[in-house]
Amino acid sequence: MTLATVGEFNLIDQLAEVVQKNHQPSAISWRNLILGIGDDAAVWQSENGPTMATTDCLIEGIHFTLDTTSWYDLGWKALAVNLSDIAAMGGRPRYALVTLGLPGKIATSDIIQLYNGMTELAGRSKTAIVGGNVSAAPVVFISITVIGQADNHILTRRAAHPGEVVAVTGSLGRSAGGLRLLQTHCDELNEGGKALREAHLKPFPRLEMGTILVAEGVHCATDISDGLVLDLEHICQQSGVGAEIEVSQVPQPPELSTLFGAEALPLALGGGEDYELLFTAPVTTIAMIAARAPCPVTIIGRITAENPGNVILIGPGGKNITLNDKGWQHFARA
Amino acid sequence: MTLATVGEFNLIDQLAEVVQKNHQPSAISWRNLILGIGDDAAVWQSENGPTMATTDCLIEGIHFTLDTTSWYDLGWKALAVNLSDIAAMGGRPRYALVTLGLPGKIATSDIIQLYNGMTELAGRSKTAIVGGNVSAAPVVFISITVIGQADNHILTRRAAHPGEVVAVTGSLGRSAGGLRLLQTHCDELNEGGKALREAHLKPFPRLEMGTILVAEGVHCATDISDGLVLDLEHICQQSGVGAEIEVSQVPQPPELSTLFGAEALPLALGGGEDYELLFTAPVTTIAMIAARAPCPVTIIGRITAENPGNVILIGPGGKNITLNDKGWQHFARA
Repeated sequence: MTLATVGEFNLIDQLAEVVQKNHQPSAISWRNLILGIGDDAAVWQSENGPTMATTDCLIEGIHFTLDTTSWYDLGWKALAVNLSDIAAMGGRPRYALVTLGLPGKIATSDIIQLYNGMTELAGRSKTAIVGGNVSAAPVVFISITVIGQADNHILTRRAAHPGEVVAVTGSLGRSAGGLRLLQTHCDELNEGGKALREAHLKPFPRLEMGTILVAEGVHCATDISDGLVLDLEHICQQSGVGAEIEVSQVPQPPELSTLFGAEALPLALGGGEDYELLFTAPVTTIAMIAARAPCPVTIIGRITAENPGNVILIGPGGKNITLNDKGWQHFARA
Repeated sequence: MTLATVGEFNLIDQLAEVVQKNHQPSAISWRNLILGIGDDAAVWQSENGPTMATTDCLIEGIHFTLDTTSWYDLGWKALAVNLSDIAAMGGRPRYALVTLGLPGKIATSDIIQLYNGMTELAGRSKTAIVGGNVSAAPVVFISITVIGQADNHILTRRAAHPGEVVAVTGSLGRSAGGLRLLQTHCDELNEGGKALREAHLKPFPRLEMGTILVAEGVHCATDISDGLVLDLEHICQQSGVGAEIEVSQVPQPPELSTLFGAEALPLALGGGEDYELLFTAPVTTIAMIAARAPCPVTIIGRITAENPGNVILIGPGGKNITLNDKGWQHFARA
């Protein structure tokens, strides 16, 4: 069995079993652990409250190509995807460590630009870049670890309950639409097209929304990185619940259907990389969240006791629809 | 200017400047920071005491080849090099996050073996593997971040003082000798040769020694990863002091000269990857450390006020000698 046949999520389950088999329950580290492998970040108890750490990596040829991404935007995005995981846990970012793998032929000024983009976002999010590692490598990769702090309780994927509604921040499909535009090398974009491209290249993590969710008593959230349906499936699997989405309620930017027609919906449902927050809460809580939110908050469905682990898409006329491409999984498309 | 012309250490200095230029001194993260870019780990003040984080990466074709390294040993070593940084700061490891970049054609059982090696060392060092990230990639790489805790003060590279002696744990050149043996694909090794090979493939981080150094009042240390002379130069540069090494005092395992003759000394001085601790202290402290140490502790030289930033090698008859290859630097050999 190769990785290409088992897929990313199966592999992670198997690695988590190896970790569990060899773990030392009496060690301080394991005693203080709140959440290990399987959520947006790991969380442990410290004197300061719940402390969290997450890591994510962008690899040339897999996650980006230098044909369509500037070094500045690449630095921004490499940090943004990690900050989004901290937002999804309801935390505040504190410290970041940056590992760069770089071919020796790259211009030093390009790497300075990468750091300009990264430190711009670090400054805006009050994240201190405190260390890292630089190594020669055959392709460019950027692996970042961010350590964060929760003021209060944390948000997890395992806290959804039947009867709650499912909601999202912002609108979906923007990043996937922007990527399509970049791949077609279309230089003459209108404002709507430029906004989609910007959403793909420079996502802004929903850190403020994460802390608002915690303050309003929400307990279950994740960020939309792999795609709405796949990320909601992770919540369903870890919470032991099902979910129904009314596809007509999924918020899409108007330019998505203008530019992509019937393809807009699959982009919104499975495109991924929107880095919006997906959460569940009693319906009465949503209005309070929406009143404080710096962005739209939209109810798109509900959590059910039926069909645990599964997401059902309800289309026009109440009919169930299926999606060919639920979201991104490494190796599975190899 | 490309990375190959500026070299690893110059690049890191330039990136640290970008970080400094855009940092937010009023943010909690920056206010609590004790040590940023430039030491074995970053350190910040928390309610638990000094908390530290370090990251290091092994890349196929750069740091290892699968021809000579088993998956089990690779998992062990990838964690060991990070734990060595925690040891060099006088800390205790707590949590690790693991990023894997993997070609899809690899067998899942190989990655399980990698995790068997990693979790074996994690168990022995009371480190909890709590998260990470798996991605498709053109070559294998393993990037690990370890978060640790100090009981007391920390060890840094910037605390060496003239009049102190320079000392090392264990013996040097074993890893570089082992690598040479692996590269010659010599299968019929005697016990000495096997020990060198093991030292290269499965280094054991000096965590116990790190805490002994702190307890005995040492303040300046680093681990020998790039090579004795280069790592001591980092101490000299950051402390604003010079150093002299009596090369006849540098501890080498007997099999090194048996197997490599006149090449043994350059391997011990510049080979790197020994993951022994290199530290400075008043001469009276060394005897107390040696009495508690689980390994040999050897005085190899002294810290001087003269020649700040430089390491002088004193050879037979008191003559200065020069080394062609002081240690490992990425890009510089590209």
